[in-house]
Amino acid sequence: MDFNPSKRSQEYLSRLKEFMQAEVYPVEESYLKHHQQNNSHPRWKEWTDYPGVAGIKTRAQEAGLWNLFLPDSKWGQGLSVLEYAPLAEEMGRVYNAAEWFNCNAPDTGNMEVLYHFGTEAQQEKWLHPLLQSEIKSIFCMTEPQVASSDATNIETSIVPEGDEIVIEGRKWWSTGLGHPDAAVAIVLGKTNPEAPRHQQHSMVLVPLDADGVKILRMQNTFGAYDPPGGHGEIIFDKVRVPKANLIQDLGSGFAIAQGRLGPGRIHHCMRCIGAAERALEMALLRSGTREAFGRPLARLGGNSERFAKARIAIDQVRLLTLFTAWKIDQHGVKNSLSEIAAIKVVAPNVLQEVTDLAMQIHGGAGLSDDFPLSSFFMQARALRLADGPDEVHLGTVAKQEFKKYQP
Amino acid sequence: MDFNPSKRSQEYLSRLKEFMQAEVYPVEESYLKHHQQNNSHPRWKEWTDYPGVAGIKTRAQEAGLWNLFLPDSKWGQGLSVLEYAPLAEEMGRVYNAAEWFNCNAPDTGNMEVLYHFGTEAQQEKWLHPLLQSEIKSIFCMTEPQVASSDATNIETSIVPEGDEIVIEGRKWWSTGLGHPDAAVAIVLGKTNPEAPRHQQHSMVLVPLDADGVKILRMQNTFGAYDPPGGHGEIIFDKVRVPKANLIQDLGSGFAIAQGRLGPGRIHHCMRCIGAAERALEMALLRSGTREAFGRPLARLGGNSERFAKARIAIDQVRLLTLFTAWKIDQHGVKNSLSEIAAIKVVAPNVLQEVTDLAMQIHGGAGLSDDFPLSSFFMQARALRLADGPDEVHLGTVAKQEFKKYQP
Amino acid sequence: MDFNPSKRSQEYLSRLKEFMQAEVYPVEESYLKHHQQNNSHPRWKEWTDYPGVAGIKTRAQEAGLWNLFLPDSKWGQGLSVLEYAPLAEEMGRVYNAAEWFNCNAPDTGNMEVLYHFGTEAQQEKWLHPLLQSEIKSIFCMTEPQVASSDATNIETSIVPEGDEIVIEGRKWWSTGLGHPDAAVAIVLGKTNPEAPRHQQHSMVLVPLDADGVKILRMQNTFGAYDPPGGHGEIIFDKVRVPKANLIQDLGSGFAIAQGRLGPGRIHHCMRCIGAAERALEMALLRSGTREAFGRPLARLGGNSERFAKARIAIDQVRLLTLFTAWKIDQHGVKNSLSEIAAIKVVAPNVLQEVTDLAMQIHGGAGLSDDFPLSSFFMQARALRLADGPDEVHLGTVAKQEFKKYQP
Amino acid sequence: MDFNPSKRSQEYLSRLKEFMQAEVYPVEESYLKHHQQNNSHPRWKEWTDYPGVAGIKTRAQEAGLWNLFLPDSKWGQGLSVLEYAPLAEEMGRVYNAAEWFNCNAPDTGNMEVLYHFGTEAQQEKWLHPLLQSEIKSIFCMTEPQVASSDATNIETSIVPEGDEIVIEGRKWWSTGLGHPDAAVAIVLGKTNPEAPRHQQHSMVLVPLDADGVKILRMQNTFGAYDPPGGHGEIIFDKVRVPKANLIQDLGSGFAIAQGRLGPGRIHHCMRCIGAAERALEMALLRSGTREAFGRPLARLGGNSERFAKARIAIDQVRLLTLFTAWKIDQHGVKNSLSEIAAIKVVAPNVLQEVTDLAMQIHGGAGLSDDFPLSSFFMQARALRLADGPDEVHLGTVAKQEFKKYQP
Repeated sequence: MDFNPSKRSQEYLSRLKEFMQAEVYPVEESYLKHHQQNNSHPRWKEWTDYPGVAGIKTRAQEAGLWNLFLPDSKWGQGLSVLEYAPLAEEMGRVYNAAEWFNCNAPDTGNMEVLYHFGTEAQQEKWLHPLLQSEIKSIFCMTEPQVASSDATNIETSIVPEGDEIVIEGRKWWSTGLGHPDAAVAIVLGKTNPEAPRHQQHSMVLVPLDADGVKILRMQNTFGAYDPPGGHGEIIFDKVRVPKANLIQDLGSGFAIAQGRLGPGRIHHCMRCIGAAERALEMALLRSGTREAFGRPLARLGGNSERFAKARIAIDQVRLLTLFTAWKIDQHGVKNSLSEIAAIKVVAPNVLQEVTDLAMQIHGGAGLSDDFPLSSFFMQARALRLADGPDEVHLGTVAKQEFKKYQP
Repeated sequence: MDFNPSKRSQEYLSRLKEFMQAEVYPVEESYLKHHQQNNSHPRWKEWTDYPGVAGIKTRAQEAGLWNLFLPDSKWGQGLSVLEYAPLAEEMGRVYNAAEWFNCNAPDTGNMEVLYHFGTEAQQEKWLHPLLQSEIKSIFCMTEPQVASSDATNIETSIVPEGDEIVIEGRKWWSTGLGHPDAAVAIVLGKTNPEAPRHQQHSMVLVPLDADGVKILRMQNTFGAYDPPGGHGEIIFDKVRVPKANLIQDLGSGFAIAQGRLGPGRIHHCMRCIGAAERALEMALLRSGTREAFGRPLARLGGNSERFAKARIAIDQVRLLTLFTAWKIDQHGVKNSLSEIAAIKVVAPNVLQEVTDLAMQIHGGAGLSDDFPLSSFFMQARALRLADGPDEVHLGTVAKQEFKKYQP
Repeated sequence: MDFNPSKRSQEYLSRLKEFMQAEVYPVEESYLKHHQQNNSHPRWKEWTDYPGVAGIKTRAQEAGLWNLFLPDSKWGQGLSVLEYAPLAEEMGRVYNAAEWFNCNAPDTGNMEVLYHFGTEAQQEKWLHPLLQSEIKSIFCMTEPQVASSDATNIETSIVPEGDEIVIEGRKWWSTGLGHPDAAVAIVLGKTNPEAPRHQQHSMVLVPLDADGVKILRMQNTFGAYDPPGGHGEIIFDKVRVPKANLIQDLGSGFAIAQGRLGPGRIHHCMRCIGAAERALEMALLRSGTREAFGRPLARLGGNSERFAKARIAIDQVRLLTLFTAWKIDQHGVKNSLSEIAAIKVVAPNVLQEVTDLAMQIHGGAGLSDDFPLSSFFMQARALRLADGPDEVHLGTVAKQEFKKYQP
Repeated sequence: MDFNPSKRSQEYLSRLKEFMQAEVYPVEESYLKHHQQNNSHPRWKEWTDYPGVAGIKTRAQEAGLWNLFLPDSKWGQGLSVLEYAPLAEEMGRVYNAAEWFNCNAPDTGNMEVLYHFGTEAQQEKWLHPLLQSEIKSIFCMTEPQVASSDATNIETSIVPEGDEIVIEGRKWWSTGLGHPDAAVAIVLGKTNPEAPRHQQHSMVLVPLDADGVKILRMQNTFGAYDPPGGHGEIIFDKVRVPKANLIQDLGSGFAIAQGRLGPGRIHHCMRCIGAAERALEMALLRSGTREAFGRPLARLGGNSERFAKARIAIDQVRLLTLFTAWKIDQHGVKNSLSEIAAIKVVAPNVLQEVTDLAMQIHGGAGLSDDFPLSSFFMQARALRLADGPDEVHLGTVAKQEFKKYQP
């Protein structure tokens, strides 16, 4: 268990921190303001990204701070999960900043799917532009009619018909669907409900301009629509795509999804740590400068104990994340199921709690998007469902325990 | 301690429930949709209320389900705090519905101020139209520059100059400021910072169309702007009003605020109970009909225990609220400080927890405004600050304990 | 919902408080010391009660503060559950004091069983001396081999043989078994494992001097043996008693147990409130007089918030207990299942938490039996299992919720 | 951050595990029984150790599994804090087993004091026999009259008089005082209350057979007296010892105590992890074999979620402990104050929670000393005060945070 960031990782981190100071923090406020003032939710089709983002992306790419998540040395930076962890944490300190380094969900997961399982043609058509952030992608899994935390409930059908694949169904909470550059969806559906439980699903690439693709609306988390990507509801009304759009074989969708939902999905845990650290820092700063009842807020009532508990929680969640990253690198995802599930529960919950505390310290201001706290809170709250409900992850951890001691 | 709702109260409750069934629940969804689709936050000046609201108000007034909060028999319905409790709970089951019975904050608190402390002229000009819901009012207390949970921090100045009062300062989180019918603000400010701690403040009525009143923007809680009333930031730039707009005397502002913030402000606790009850009901219904991993959600993992704990928490918070209402009625606000503070902590926290649970059960849908859950959650989260931070209320409870045992 | 203690109840409470002041508090310390110094656990057969107890009992009986729990006006004081609640709370303030008023478990439950279901002969032989505290009784339910929280697991057999009943089995955690005056056990066992689930059990009276009764040992909670009654393990080795010792019929044991475990068992919840109130009072007193780091403990860190939360928790649990008592009185046990289960979870947990807090305030002293805190803590911790595990009660509450909303 | 146990450490761990299997687990039950049956608390002067312990110690010493805590290669095994961590965890799995490897508090801390600060004569007289477990030592710090968590409150006086040192005062909770082999006390007292805050104290060695040393009694935690060492109250009534018994100089007591209470005291955190792991293991085993309501306990209600949370908590506390050990090794105690304080809060609390859960699973049995759970629980509960209250440690963590962000 050597959690020491490698020389390489430290060097990246140092450059990333400089870049954040020079490019990211200075525009954080105007970025939030841009979306507040320009992106009205009833008119989501007119959403625009903050004008400064394009330049930041170019410079991040030039600085080699690009596709940091991808372990491939040619297309990404060749960093291990453990090496990537402190970088993801750093990006997580500013809401949405990961996107400016092309390290944001769901594009990262989709790129990983295409990288590992895509054909050469699929890679050329979609992976390469995604790696350049020329297009955006979405991932369509959750469905409104069923409890999608159990993937066997999924009802969207993906069936072959001649040289084509026909997709029919309704998906929602498709992150990034509202983005001006959104171009393609990876859709998970069922091909054969009679097949064994884990061989029923297929995964297929669907261009968003295909006939029968209907975007119904953007959805909000609390009241927030999260432009410029958002999260949307979409109908696939007998959409036809060529067979070449199938990812691997019919029936292999579940296995790919499991792979996709594994390592790719602890990136958000790392970002949660950065966000939590930032929230605590903000709370400490504000509580030292504002006074009430004759003392700085920091010294009032149980505030100092809450700060201490937040520090301890953050340190513990960081250690667990690093340990999980290390274990994935050393022993593979399949041998790290309990740890991955654990961190998926802990990280968003710690972020939610720390942000809740920071909000109390900030008063009303902390609830609004004057500060990034409310974005962090929503990020945390949404993650407690988005990547599988807390309860499902706890079930995974329990299952591993039962295996150990109840033979 | 007789918590039994009086015959009167039971009769009101029975009529209110019928009215809710006939008029309120049926429009709940279209009400939420109306605001989603029409009220874009960057254009808050164009906000409109749901068209059906006017009719509901008329019929509520005709049915005598109007101004239920006001203990006066002529202007209100003459109900005690305890008698009002189950009615407020019932209205709390639908987000914003209290407004349709003219029982919403901050109008209720403002009406109470005018009722108890207003001159006849003030009452005629502002109280009477408020009692008819012809105009809307706001209450300006919190300021961006200071920790306003300690009222002595307030910096807005209210000073006499000849026959006029001059108001200068900046306020925010003024609830209802964005409403199309918002007409008048009650402003709390300082007249004499050298006076004894509780005699420094004054309260004055300021028409929103007075010279120097500048509404800067609407503010959001998480991403939600809460139309058609919203919460806004406002500048009073050397605003002049006649002395007749002063509520009581110069220097009496703090005392009035204390009175205003007392009984008026446990109404929201009652509403929280209704909202929590509704959230639990929704969770129970959904978890009984949706399945995952071969069982209804209700039977999975710790869900049933969480439901049990929610039921217990709701029952306990209702009992504490009824007890506090009873104590206010019997022994007055001054002898109920600990109980009032207690319920202000417990009620929003229970609502937040129960709603959080219900959201987990609903999946992504529970986070959006497809369901009222997210509104309940924001209501709870905001109340943990809006009516004084949890921490300040806990301080009040502790203070009363110290008095008892540490002479 | 009138929780007001009746005139009668108030009058009893006032006399009880006087008695506590005059007789109970003054001996509390020497009572604890007596057991510390004289009652060595390896020699439990030599246990003695504190010499002063006999006199207190006589005077309590003379004062009419005797058998307060029994609703019968001739044998008890004819108080309703709600009327008894504040009295039980008051007795709960001193560990074991309920016994001095003949209001202690398991004698109360046993007396209720005999009162409601016993024959005249049984009442004369056992109920009358129990009502005089001339003898002590135990209740044998839990068994070491099985999860006894599910009564259908019980293995002890109670079978008729001619004119006799033969009892065979092993029981433990039989409270009061070590008492010098312990004379009789009510034993729950199975007569017919093939009968319908709730008609398999019988209940029988077994004198402790019957052949085949073997007391194995006293058991401890943490390290405490709780003299002079204790909790013990006992073997019934083909014990024979006359058929007249059967309580009601063969097969009616489960129904009686349900009745017994219902109302009788919320008495301990009432006592928990008194104990919690006492623990908080002690914490407040001590934290006001001891200093560290230049301030009284009460003002350090989060202590004041913890006191506030303890106050709120105690007030809420009292209200829930009164409400449950009222509901039992008005609507019967069968219609109060959810409330009874709720209070059985909440009351011991609140006591455990408040005592834990008080212990932190008292430092090491709080852990030992120099103060009653450790007894309160063990009482709470044991109750979370003794009267059915928390988890079983939460299951009962959930079941009632499901019934309401998931038809 | 390389947490990997070194080859050396792994090799020790492997041998230790074998030794535990061969020597320790097999006698665990009879060890508990011995104390239950033979060591009556009112007669603590007759306490005896379990007869098998002497042999185990000899064999542990022969196996080189002796004084593992001491970083010195000659007197101990030369292991770093990080190398020792997994060994301490392993020993922690059996209550009191650390003593059989001469790794128990307070002897370890006392040996460290003598090792670092003792004169050659002191080392020969006391350190060497302690290293052989020929004698036992106690540490006298806490006093009944004052809040000793603030060391400046201490009242015991240690003053020079001619060639002697005179000690006068009362101490309690002196662990090990009841041990048949207890021979010497290290006493912390005040020499000069007028000196600067951290130069007032002195530390002195006092043989327990010195004139004026009076052991008043053994104290209990809950009801447990923890033989054969126990925790006692002691009076120093004008006790005179030669000046040579002074540890370092007059006035250096506080500095030594700080050093003593630092690294030595995270050993108990390591042991807590082993105990928690054991408790969880026991809960998993039992819940898989016992059934209620038709399912194994493991599958009932929220049990599986609680197991998952326990697993996560244990993994997190282990990582934090290893990290702290690593940081102490690499950067010294002074640079690890926040981490040391953090783990002192977290480790006992996790143990308390996990044991509480395991007790619920075990039913009544879990509360008694039939199982080691109750010992683990008391260990946890006592540690939350014994090594400084939770609240003081949280204060330390908060202080470090304030330093970072509130300059």
